Amino acid sequence: MKRKICVVITARASYSRIKTLLIAIKAHPSLRLQLVLTGSGMLDKYGGMLNLLEREGFNNILKVSNLLENENHTAAAKTTGLGIIELASAFENTRPDIVVTIADRYETMSAAIAASFMNIPLAHVQGGEVTGNIDERVRHAVSKLADMHFVATESARQRVIAMGEDPHKVWHTGCPSNDLAIQAKNDASVQFDYENCQTKFPVSKYLVVMQHPVTNEGGFIKEQFNTLLTAIEALQIPTFWFTPNADYGADRIMKEIRIYSETTKNHKIHFLRNLNPEAFLKLIKHCACLIGNSSTGIREGSLLGVPVVNIGSRQNGRERSGNVVDVDFESDAIADAVREQLANGPYQSSFLYGKGNAGLQIAEILATTELKTNKQITY
Amino acid sequence: MKRKICVVITARASYSRIKTLLIAIKAHPSLRLQLVLTGSGMLDKYGGMLNLLEREGFNNILKVSNLLENENHTAAAKTTGLGIIELASAFENTRPDIVVTIADRYETMSAAIAASFMNIPLAHVQGGEVTGNIDERVRHAVSKLADMHFVATESARQRVIAMGEDPHKVWHTGCPSNDLAIQAKNDASVQFDYENCQTKFPVSKYLVVMQHPVTNEGGFIKEQFNTLLTAIEALQIPTFWFTPNADYGADRIMKEIRIYSETTKNHKIHFLRNLNPEAFLKLIKHCACLIGNSSTGIREGSLLGVPVVNIGSRQNGRERSGNVVDVDFESDAIADAVREQLANGPYQSSFLYGKGNAGLQIAEILATTELKTNKQITY
Amino acid sequence: MKRKICVVITARASYSRIKTLLIAIKAHPSLRLQLVLTGSGMLDKYGGMLNLLEREGFNNILKVSNLLENENHTAAAKTTGLGIIELASAFENTRPDIVVTIADRYETMSAAIAASFMNIPLAHVQGGEVTGNIDERVRHAVSKLADMHFVATESARQRVIAMGEDPHKVWHTGCPSNDLAIQAKNDASVQFDYENCQTKFPVSKYLVVMQHPVTNEGGFIKEQFNTLLTAIEALQIPTFWFTPNADYGADRIMKEIRIYSETTKNHKIHFLRNLNPEAFLKLIKHCACLIGNSSTGIREGSLLGVPVVNIGSRQNGRERSGNVVDVDFESDAIADAVREQLANGPYQSSFLYGKGNAGLQIAEILATTELKTNKQITY
Amino acid sequence: MKRKICVVITARASYSRIKTLLIAIKAHPSLRLQLVLTGSGMLDKYGGMLNLLEREGFNNILKVSNLLENENHTAAAKTTGLGIIELASAFENTRPDIVVTIADRYETMSAAIAASFMNIPLAHVQGGEVTGNIDERVRHAVSKLADMHFVATESARQRVIAMGEDPHKVWHTGCPSNDLAIQAKNDASVQFDYENCQTKFPVSKYLVVMQHPVTNEGGFIKEQFNTLLTAIEALQIPTFWFTPNADYGADRIMKEIRIYSETTKNHKIHFLRNLNPEAFLKLIKHCACLIGNSSTGIREGSLLGVPVVNIGSRQNGRERSGNVVDVDFESDAIADAVREQLANGPYQSSFLYGKGNAGLQIAEILATTELKTNKQITY
Repeated sequence: MKRKICVVITARASYSRIKTLLIAIKAHPSLRLQLVLTGSGMLDKYGGMLNLLEREGFNNILKVSNLLENENHTAAAKTTGLGIIELASAFENTRPDIVVTIADRYETMSAAIAASFMNIPLAHVQGGEVTGNIDERVRHAVSKLADMHFVATESARQRVIAMGEDPHKVWHTGCPSNDLAIQAKNDASVQFDYENCQTKFPVSKYLVVMQHPVTNEGGFIKEQFNTLLTAIEALQIPTFWFTPNADYGADRIMKEIRIYSETTKNHKIHFLRNLNPEAFLKLIKHCACLIGNSSTGIREGSLLGVPVVNIGSRQNGRERSGNVVDVDFESDAIADAVREQLANGPYQSSFLYGKGNAGLQIAEILATTELKTNKQITY
Repeated sequence: MKRKICVVITARASYSRIKTLLIAIKAHPSLRLQLVLTGSGMLDKYGGMLNLLEREGFNNILKVSNLLENENHTAAAKTTGLGIIELASAFENTRPDIVVTIADRYETMSAAIAASFMNIPLAHVQGGEVTGNIDERVRHAVSKLADMHFVATESARQRVIAMGEDPHKVWHTGCPSNDLAIQAKNDASVQFDYENCQTKFPVSKYLVVMQHPVTNEGGFIKEQFNTLLTAIEALQIPTFWFTPNADYGADRIMKEIRIYSETTKNHKIHFLRNLNPEAFLKLIKHCACLIGNSSTGIREGSLLGVPVVNIGSRQNGRERSGNVVDVDFESDAIADAVREQLANGPYQSSFLYGKGNAGLQIAEILATTELKTNKQITY
Repeated sequence: MKRKICVVITARASYSRIKTLLIAIKAHPSLRLQLVLTGSGMLDKYGGMLNLLEREGFNNILKVSNLLENENHTAAAKTTGLGIIELASAFENTRPDIVVTIADRYETMSAAIAASFMNIPLAHVQGGEVTGNIDERVRHAVSKLADMHFVATESARQRVIAMGEDPHKVWHTGCPSNDLAIQAKNDASVQFDYENCQTKFPVSKYLVVMQHPVTNEGGFIKEQFNTLLTAIEALQIPTFWFTPNADYGADRIMKEIRIYSETTKNHKIHFLRNLNPEAFLKLIKHCACLIGNSSTGIREGSLLGVPVVNIGSRQNGRERSGNVVDVDFESDAIADAVREQLANGPYQSSFLYGKGNAGLQIAEILATTELKTNKQITY
Repeated sequence: MKRKICVVITARASYSRIKTLLIAIKAHPSLRLQLVLTGSGMLDKYGGMLNLLEREGFNNILKVSNLLENENHTAAAKTTGLGIIELASAFENTRPDIVVTIADRYETMSAAIAASFMNIPLAHVQGGEVTGNIDERVRHAVSKLADMHFVATESARQRVIAMGEDPHKVWHTGCPSNDLAIQAKNDASVQFDYENCQTKFPVSKYLVVMQHPVTNEGGFIKEQFNTLLTAIEALQIPTFWFTPNADYGADRIMKEIRIYSETTKNHKIHFLRNLNPEAFLKLIKHCACLIGNSSTGIREGSLLGVPVVNIGSRQNGRERSGNVVDVDFESDAIADAVREQLANGPYQSSFLYGKGNAGLQIAEILATTELKTNKQITY
């Protein structure tokens, strides 16, 4: 009988990171795919994925709306609690053989707890990496709940094993997000469709900003935004700026963006919520510099050779290749670092985060590895 | 200003393990205690703690009823999810400086997630130990969410540090449960009040059974119970048998207990739900042999020198001193091991799990350690 | 396109009351059936319905586990809240054209709120009746949320209309539970299989007890039980006694039942959790007297001509035919009333609660009535 | 002992409607006030009430965050379900003698269910009125759950009684919102502080718009907004426009407001989220015409003699005095109706909704009425 693999997607980023795995599961003769869409992935304002997933050929998606209004610190906890409750029902009704959970958003904890408390083998993609912020805790706690680990780098593999996980259940497959990035890198076809994007300014050379609020520095979210804005304005280069994830602080940043948009004439910033993974990668591939605190710069950016300016503590500790310059939250420092990166230009591709076949490898392991749920720390 | 310490108690076992810490927090000039009672601790059928806590002088206890009927595997997950939601509100309204969570029941995960997702410093007591079962995952996942670790043994300390926790935030204080056990050991006063217990048989030499259902061996719960029952009946010794925790499978064991009680005449088993910690320790201290899969035998038992027969996989890997004989789930093996322990008699006290001042030490550290929530894995 | 009818079953009683409607929906050319099983219907200890429903040919049942441990008064509220959350997801994923909710258990409120707040037309079966207890509030509040009303009696129809509901949306179809009762009445075949029931005493003439805890008289639940027990013991007649629903107080009654069973030798009471609807009706049909506070005596009992002794306030106000004698909670009064009913013997059948075609009528209306959700009070 | 009265506030409107009652409860020698703030009242974006309540002297407010992101129809249901769960805990911990719930927002259903399922006497303010929309169902369903009814008008009293409520528990006290309106009417002091409001245009004669999305006409929310906008623009009069409640559709209206603000130069519309009750009433008192579908125009507007243009179905059936002109959702019709009202000027005050002492009356009844929870429909 085919193994039923339930993949829980919680946000637009989850999908990009897992798309080639989803395709590989669908295509695998011994696997069946059950998609569950939850968290911010269910909402248009955070780049809702439902229509996109259906357009891309994924059907029978189970929907779980669980996102609380995120003005205060209880929202992440309550969203997670509600997610556990509803995913337990989803798993009870669909009876998956394996649950797959991705990366380290607070919403991914829901799938990890529901599955492991129900004795369903749990697979975790992108464990073992290091960053700052609450993501850091979520990622490692999920590793300690998971039965199978698909990691992106060799050092991530060593780290998961060092935490006491069984080495035979930790596979260094590379990151599925790099599968797509390699396809984008090798795709010499048309560029990103800037026209379609309806910017109000001409685009040739451009920057991209991906900056998420940092929740344990919550008092300074507005200041962080304005610091970054000052830097970008000083550079006087057309900029694509992605609105933030559904984290605590997102609403305040959204508000600052609106105020800026309303009160500033002829600015050269185009704010974006979402793109499908391929369009997104084209945008990144051709940008002059990627600025912010997203892992995209470090992960896909290293493969695409994109110059990156990484700001603040959120990616502290994340393994990186040579394309990243780190700076503190200071306008002048940010602008200077961008100028330095512009002067440097594109970097050599790095295959640190994978060689392009992660999705296929993971699907094959999911189809064949022995399933058990009685793990124990190895020391 | 005094630090407000919020201690979340989820089950009768939590209280025994933390009682001396609660007293130490109440007595500390720089600390205020906020108790929250949740999970099975709220229900009489699992030995509800509310009246006991109030009788023992703890007031202003916040009550959170979140336990679902536990007939199926969704109950643990949903109870945890509901606990997160409600504890988030409890923390929002009481604004603790530190949240303390204990050991490794699935219900303790709720406090860990609510606190860490709300950026409240989280202290974990009894991390770093090794067992089988879902507890094993919960314990280590909570360690990866916690900011402060109060561990019972030196090897637990090393294990928490090996998982990548900051050594300066891991304190080997011993286990507060041992504080009480040492008091019990030194208390030469009256014995356990067997009269008051209303056994239907005379008691002088007796056994104690503490056996919990093992959730990832769920198909065999009834058989496990009957295997153990056969062994106990063969021994023909008066026995105090504790009804199980609110785990998956508890209802089925309760049902077997009722059937047995209804259909068996003149049996010598007295079933117990709960005792206050001191009475409980007196009962254990004087028993001829403690049988089952509870950590009590390994932990308090080693201090009290009680002979223990440990059954099955639940305590696999838990550090132990010489008072424990391990057996598989087989009637003859269990009965033989008990006979062997009876022949051996009491053991030397071991101070493996602490020297009797854990509660005081932990309170002092809670009062003085620097509070921060930006931890990162150390390698 | 076929209308999808989502019927939410919350307890064993819901199923008996709706079985012929379920069959009629399945058989109707313009309707599709989606069953959702929730509340106490999910649990074996309250006569779990899942296996029974599947055995009786209902497939693709959506499962929602939401029942909290019911030791205290928060359980009913929290179970209802959790039910709303999960049913909202169930409706989002299955997209029914109409939701059907039954009678007046607190758990049925969940379906009413989820459907009406999501603008899904809501049909209510068994509105407009009068009783005591929390059921009374739930029933009428659900009427004020519902778009279509299928009532059992003429006076129920008038009452729903008097509450301001549109008379064109209130149909006096009779109660589907009576459809089954009429089939049972006309079925001269084998009697109830007492052998299979494994009573420990011979059965020829027997009583049936169906007594539920009354939640707003909570302090006296144990006394109520013992009062009734005293009466039954005094009568010295074999008795089938149904364990209570999952209401507040059920656990305490279950405990009294266990104590009684354990401590009383040679008693003539056989405690039952559940029967399938047909077996149940056979048991009732042939009983000498039905005793308690269930609506069964008044509803199916009147059709079957069974003598009924109704105790206390729970059915206060419920319309009844001549087969019922009402008594207060007093042992002597209960025993005397039973003796009076035994002397009287069977009654004439009454068709007060329907003529046997309610299920078919309701299905036809669900298939053809105009669906709209913009109702307004009529005065 | 003083009765503890727990008042549950869910949205900014709840507070205005109940402020004089809160003051009267605080001042009453036999009553204690326990405030609970929940629903949209907890969020700044919907005019969060926490700071305002504290500024106005209410302390010890219990906070319950339960609002889900409201992009889809599950949000109202899930928010209500979560509210029930958390309010059950709030009531368990604070043990009120009476719970007071206000009006008819979906969020108010939570308090009604939690209290009535926990056998806590429930008082409902503003029952018996008639409108369109989901509010209509919520209001009457809450009446059927409540034990005490404080209604605003004589016809509301008759309607609640007609629904089968005990006439002795239905008091025609008038609406507490009118208490404040009468104070505002009699307050000849300074006008509304338009300066402080930072409009970008001079204000002398002005309009006020209060338009909420109508959930069962959900497909047309954007069109409704633009129809109204066209009318207001045609009038060329300075306008204060309140952003909508946290209903389904609110986000889409907020988005339209932002687009309009960003893309329209020199417009004369000032968008407002919230004012304290007194400032709000001053603004209304002096406006040339109040436009939209809020009950404010009909309720407080009638007392203040403000000309009102009421749009669409939301207030269909609500009792009104002569100050209201009703129109359909059509730009020309709206603009014409406003011109008609401007030509007419202010109206005579109507005391239809109360004489100014509702808060005091209700507090006195709460202090003295017999408390019981065993109600039954009266026919």
